[in-house]
Amino acid sequence: MKRRDFVTALGIGAGAAALSACGKKESEDCAQQGIGEQAASKDVIHWKMVTTWPKNFPGLGTAPERFAKNVAKMSNGRLQIKVHGAGELVPALEAFSAVSAGTAQIGHGAAYYWKGKEPAAQFFAAVPFGLNAQEMNSWIHYGGGQQLWDEAYEQFNLKPFAGGNTGVQMAGWFRKKINSLEDLKGLKMRIPGLGGEVLKKLGGVPVNIPGGELFTALQTGTIDATEWVGPYNDLAFGLYKAAKYYYYPGWHEPGTTLEVIINKKALQELPEDLQAIVEQAIRASNQDMLDEYTARNNQALNTLVNEHKVELLKLPEDVLKQLHAVSNEVVQEVANTSEMTKKVYDSFTKFAEQSRAYHMISEQAFYETRTL
Amino acid sequence: MKRRDFVTALGIGAGAAALSACGKKESEDCAQQGIGEQAASKDVIHWKMVTTWPKNFPGLGTAPERFAKNVAKMSNGRLQIKVHGAGELVPALEAFSAVSAGTAQIGHGAAYYWKGKEPAAQFFAAVPFGLNAQEMNSWIHYGGGQQLWDEAYEQFNLKPFAGGNTGVQMAGWFRKKINSLEDLKGLKMRIPGLGGEVLKKLGGVPVNIPGGELFTALQTGTIDATEWVGPYNDLAFGLYKAAKYYYYPGWHEPGTTLEVIINKKALQELPEDLQAIVEQAIRASNQDMLDEYTARNNQALNTLVNEHKVELLKLPEDVLKQLHAVSNEVVQEVANTSEMTKKVYDSFTKFAEQSRAYHMISEQAFYETRTL
Repeated sequence: MKRRDFVTALGIGAGAAALSACGKKESEDCAQQGIGEQAASKDVIHWKMVTTWPKNFPGLGTAPERFAKNVAKMSNGRLQIKVHGAGELVPALEAFSAVSAGTAQIGHGAAYYWKGKEPAAQFFAAVPFGLNAQEMNSWIHYGGGQQLWDEAYEQFNLKPFAGGNTGVQMAGWFRKKINSLEDLKGLKMRIPGLGGEVLKKLGGVPVNIPGGELFTALQTGTIDATEWVGPYNDLAFGLYKAAKYYYYPGWHEPGTTLEVIINKKALQELPEDLQAIVEQAIRASNQDMLDEYTARNNQALNTLVNEHKVELLKLPEDVLKQLHAVSNEVVQEVANTSEMTKKVYDSFTKFAEQSRAYHMISEQAFYETRTL
Repeated sequence: MKRRDFVTALGIGAGAAALSACGKKESEDCAQQGIGEQAASKDVIHWKMVTTWPKNFPGLGTAPERFAKNVAKMSNGRLQIKVHGAGELVPALEAFSAVSAGTAQIGHGAAYYWKGKEPAAQFFAAVPFGLNAQEMNSWIHYGGGQQLWDEAYEQFNLKPFAGGNTGVQMAGWFRKKINSLEDLKGLKMRIPGLGGEVLKKLGGVPVNIPGGELFTALQTGTIDATEWVGPYNDLAFGLYKAAKYYYYPGWHEPGTTLEVIINKKALQELPEDLQAIVEQAIRASNQDMLDEYTARNNQALNTLVNEHKVELLKLPEDVLKQLHAVSNEVVQEVANTSEMTKKVYDSFTKFAEQSRAYHMISEQAFYETRTL
């Protein structure tokens, strides 16, 4: 039911929409305001949000919870979004299909999970040697990225949004040192996505293991190495107890962008003010996650290095150069998949070129100057 | 009048608040919904927003306009914010006092403008060799910065928010080359704030000239150099026609944070949902400005270098090192001003130390790796 129809049906104008301020949970408030629960709860819109993270997983999972709380506050309780952890309503990797079909109205995950449905999706999550957080946000919101993302998801009845960012991730935890390209040969490493394909081309063996099983796999030597996120999440997983060497930089995920997807019909059926509330809350939440990761990563790195005596190492320059060259090949192959991937690739690489040039004299030059 | 009182007075519950969906501008919509304009416009809250920028000034001035539009949409017209350019209601640098006194309910500017009222304010705008945009946002939102900012503005009845960011600025436009520290001696440069104090300690002559007079001052040689913002704003001002050398990096303003200030009483008098709407819209707008600057700076640098053949130069390493050393002295002097400045300085520098360490192996390492 569209808002206007609803309003007309009740014949009391826009005011009707706000009665829903008193949802089920707010019955006490409503009682104080003299509104019966039954009448009040009538117009509350309930959305289900499916996520690809365990409920309240630090950073990735807490962001959708905060977003839902903000929407409830901003809408005066008229839009209630219930957040479901992975597997609660649908398995993690079925979130996309669930929102596309309308089983859930909204989802939180990362676009590279959906490369099987639309290969172009990968450009909206993480591209090896691609864009960092600031650049991803700028490309999406002011560089034409959003329009292409909309177009790519059109066939699925989904409207996508940037829904958080981890910043540059870490290259990962290794049980043995990486001194040369030779050391990548036969290396069994948990590294999904494009990064994994790059490793494979260099003779490594990328494997995909769910987060929950990572620690044991690494500790028992089932795998030789794993990437995960960054110091904050890695410390929480205790990975430093399973591998000695912590490598940087996260060449494969330089500014991993999380994603909110909304079923288009569900979005369009919201009154316009609630649409605006949802969109602005996503935008705010997008920045909030990066702010949190930046602060918590600072602290966690401190703990890892000073308390847990982690050996922090930079990947050798020739290894990084080779990873970069092979990454370009892998990304080019994705670009050649379809007209859509080609279009997204062109927009992305054009933006990346300008951005690299500008950031060399701004952000990069400042970082370098500060540490002279 | 508080929302609850208002609601009680009308005796019709939360629904009343939303009648205001039909503001004066929405009379057509309201007519369709069968609500008379007079009744409908009753509950619209009108706020005046004073800014320190000319009306619709690119980036800095367009951000508050977008913010006001978003608030109107999200509140279904219940909160109408009219944006006033500098000088329209009060002169630019009286925005702080106007919002403090309640003449206007909200303001947009930058905290370093208010150092005469509260020296600690400078830490919330730009600190030479301090934090970049990502770090400022993280310090403010997850590093204790916001609490200190609140405390610093408490006495003025103001609630401050991060309200945009320009990213790393440029060092500025120079009519002659800077080859050594000698070249700073006697240099007449428009560079306000802490950057100016640093220049002065190194024998330069900092002057303060309003933006509108910059081009002529530089072209006629009244000044030898000027900093302004970055490629996007600098290109629009045509500064490349008045000076030949464009220096980087913007050591003096590495992540200039803009500011929204709200009169505390006005904020508290809003219904809770409108408070949440205003706060989230500011947060979204904070990121939006950086996204825009990043994209437009990319493009503008391209134009400056390729079309206007601007000579892009990096300040010599020994000059940067000396600027850094003197900046530390100047910032330390600010810290010694009061208990408040000391507290903010301690929080800021502790965060900056951790952040420098973390970003050396993440953002900085990635930038360097990408350009190997």
